[in-house]
Amino acid sequence: MTRWKLTIEYEGGAFCGWQRQPHAPSIQQCIEEAIERFCGETATLHGAGRTDTGVHARAQVAHFDITKNTDGDTVRDAVNFYLRPHKIAILGAEHVDEAFHARFSAIQRSYRYRIVNRRAPLAIDAERAWHVPRPLDIAAMQAAADLLIGQHDFSTFRAQNCQSNSPVKTLDRLNVTRDGETIVIETAARSFLYHQVRNMAGTLAMVGTGQWSLDDFRTAFAACDRSKGGPTAPAHALCFWNVTYPQK
Amino acid sequence: MTRWKLTIEYEGGAFCGWQRQPHAPSIQQCIEEAIERFCGETATLHGAGRTDTGVHARAQVAHFDITKNTDGDTVRDAVNFYLRPHKIAILGAEHVDEAFHARFSAIQRSYRYRIVNRRAPLAIDAERAWHVPRPLDIAAMQAAADLLIGQHDFSTFRAQNCQSNSPVKTLDRLNVTRDGETIVIETAARSFLYHQVRNMAGTLAMVGTGQWSLDDFRTAFAACDRSKGGPTAPAHALCFWNVTYPQK
Repeated sequence: MTRWKLTIEYEGGAFCGWQRQPHAPSIQQCIEEAIERFCGETATLHGAGRTDTGVHARAQVAHFDITKNTDGDTVRDAVNFYLRPHKIAILGAEHVDEAFHARFSAIQRSYRYRIVNRRAPLAIDAERAWHVPRPLDIAAMQAAADLLIGQHDFSTFRAQNCQSNSPVKTLDRLNVTRDGETIVIETAARSFLYHQVRNMAGTLAMVGTGQWSLDDFRTAFAACDRSKGGPTAPAHALCFWNVTYPQK
Repeated sequence: MTRWKLTIEYEGGAFCGWQRQPHAPSIQQCIEEAIERFCGETATLHGAGRTDTGVHARAQVAHFDITKNTDGDTVRDAVNFYLRPHKIAILGAEHVDEAFHARFSAIQRSYRYRIVNRRAPLAIDAERAWHVPRPLDIAAMQAAADLLIGQHDFSTFRAQNCQSNSPVKTLDRLNVTRDGETIVIETAARSFLYHQVRNMAGTLAMVGTGQWSLDDFRTAFAACDRSKGGPTAPAHALCFWNVTYPQK
């Protein structure tokens, strides 16, 4: 058996998310089917992160095992060929050691959440950004974001159906930057709770509009209670950005 | 009568282009209908540039006249309301002098043409960029681009059904830049021939891949003959970027 590591870009709009579901096409299923059409083997694809319905990825990572003797360029090109016309692209395929596991070997995951902050509705970015018409104060959002850095109980930002063993996570980075009318929330951690990034984005926006003070945010975070948090920001504005593995 | 100037963003994928056509929805038609639903008046919308089927706009400019007494914020918000769910957004509406004409007063138009230069197909940018798998040498493309600056006969880049009186135009800017795998061709002129930007992009790409030398490009340009030029690059990667008017 050879283990292959894939780096994958996708436009999440047409899928029920990363993970196989009985009722709708998932990214995992489409790629598994393309692998089977390429080499005739049934492989299970293990992703670094299970993105939600509608969430995009710039560089998701996944691995699978097959017996076929081939090379990385062939795997990339052949799987891409059989993936058409789905908006999923294999950016690279490399042969990795059996010890590598896309999910369990990952030491950091990063996401970017994109907001367009203007009065007018979105046209070009309608399916890639969250439209927030009220002016957002990014200095206030950053002050709130700074409270989340480090190891904490993130229950306030945890979806009810989260399957994680513990609500305690360590947040490495949470930066709010503006370029014209576009605001990007960039975040990194070893791992995230279910809906954590979208719940942090929705709650930071409450501070950005001034509906919440920094103290309101602090109180909500300390409550460790999802019902005290702000709304879940929409999925289509979230992009799974990068996965980091230990240097070989 | 009051003359209104609109700044307009749109995602061109669902439209037959800017201009009204009998067989398919155009951006002009959608906005004219939204104006009529807002104020009950039938207005003709005059655009600064007639973008093609599939071409996007970041800041198209257009004007129209109505008798209704209102203000810019109301025009913007009401027209946006009636434009839903089309991917067309009025970014701003301002009252202008009768002497202003979106098309004839414009002194410069700019466009951006976006290429993603990598082996893997496109997922996230599938509808916004041209996928060129062969490596592109942007220094070679820029050297060719530099030959086009200034006043020339652009017949080599002119579509057959172009309605311009003359093939002679003055190109102000044509810059080729790379950021990672994304290459942007940015160009500005008082006005362009029909398909000129897409034909320049397609021909510059011939130089970028090395299929054409700089001399081949120079010879094709000097021929003043469309059949000697390179291919027309796809519409969905082109964005009408900006229109400049004289300072008041």
